[in-house]
Amino acid sequence: MLGVLGGMGPLATVDFFGKLVAATQAETDQQHMPVIIRSVPQIPDRTACLLHGGESPLPALRHGMRELARAGATVVAIPCNTAHHWAGDLAAPDLPPILHIVDAVAERLAALLPGGAPVALMCTEGTRAAKVYEKRLDRNRWPILAESQAALDAVSRGIAMVKAGRIEAATALFAQQAEDCRARGAAAVILACTEIPVALREGEPFFIDATDALARRCVRWFIETYRGAPGGCAAS
Amino acid sequence: MLGVLGGMGPLATVDFFGKLVAATQAETDQQHMPVIIRSVPQIPDRTACLLHGGESPLPALRHGMRELARAGATVVAIPCNTAHHWAGDLAAPDLPPILHIVDAVAERLAALLPGGAPVALMCTEGTRAAKVYEKRLDRNRWPILAESQAALDAVSRGIAMVKAGRIEAATALFAQQAEDCRARGAAAVILACTEIPVALREGEPFFIDATDALARRCVRWFIETYRGAPGGCAAS
Repeated sequence: MLGVLGGMGPLATVDFFGKLVAATQAETDQQHMPVIIRSVPQIPDRTACLLHGGESPLPALRHGMRELARAGATVVAIPCNTAHHWAGDLAAPDLPPILHIVDAVAERLAALLPGGAPVALMCTEGTRAAKVYEKRLDRNRWPILAESQAALDAVSRGIAMVKAGRIEAATALFAQQAEDCRARGAAAVILACTEIPVALREGEPFFIDATDALARRCVRWFIETYRGAPGGCAAS
Repeated sequence: MLGVLGGMGPLATVDFFGKLVAATQAETDQQHMPVIIRSVPQIPDRTACLLHGGESPLPALRHGMRELARAGATVVAIPCNTAHHWAGDLAAPDLPPILHIVDAVAERLAALLPGGAPVALMCTEGTRAAKVYEKRLDRNRWPILAESQAALDAVSRGIAMVKAGRIEAATALFAQQAEDCRARGAAAVILACTEIPVALREGEPFFIDATDALARRCVRWFIETYRGAPGGCAAS
């Protein structure tokens, strides 16, 4: 069963869950994939840890992974890009494997920009500082454009707005930032913080929504794992 | 911690989760309420059991309640009106108490129609046959209007559309049924199947969205239970 380590933030987890259900082809409840979601937002702030040496979220992340395993999760998705900095530390024999969000984005890039082209990231400062994408994406194929500190600051302000429920203000801010990415020569902009697509709907191929990419990756995992099970699905 | 016994259906669970987060006043992730959601849709169809003697969902519901308790849930919400027929059977010393959806709707009715007035139900045939609302709502105050078999059939078709992801078709059908309720003299129509508000947005006082009522009830439980905890919230 798929486990979701959520709460980073809560609206991003709702968005991921909605995209997971939307990506599933099903006619009845029973054909949908079973999922257990742990949305416990009392996890130390990821970016504050990476930038300013704040409390590490790792113990809380590890606790969440263990709880999901205990609840029957055999694989885990984490709808938070920044948290993937600790994905390596969460790889352990007693923990379920993680479907990595950057791998899911790479699959979408390969489908949309097979020849490679420069891409831009809209992400937290933590994701950028920890090089979550830079370390895992094939940068010879998809070079990641540099952005200014002002651009990073603007995206951070938008993310804080989403976390506080001020969606409309965030939408305008993110749309402007995406336009700036286009002006700087990006062939695509990766919405690489799960708060961003809460406010900025995909709608055009210029955006690569990391949340949606992860949801589709999870559905493919489900189909590949339970293909041939009764009704095309599996009980927990 | 709040547990959510979901999957009946999956989109209704997404809708409930979104309304839960929206109903929470919070500026940061950490101020949001922790929640564990079990969306395991492999639960026998509730209405098929109530109408045609199909397999009972009770063992699967009880199993889900036990798993939520094991995962740390101290109270449970079930975003499925029909499943509340079994709420009494799920009351046991070893299971968390259920925040009942009809009680949550009654609170909203008391706020919106304090003097009482006839109301209409849009619900599954199972909810109607089992008298889930009739048995628990103060009918001297809010009499429930009878509806035709044709009206019940139409709502059932809309619910099946939502479960299959055909939202737009369901919206048109539900809107017509709501208009018919108004024409029959309803002062309010209770959206008493959690699939309905997925397609029919609340937007006007004429609708009482049972899903939203339950979400608000859960937030009130959280505030009452953890008032005074650090940061206004509680770790799991």
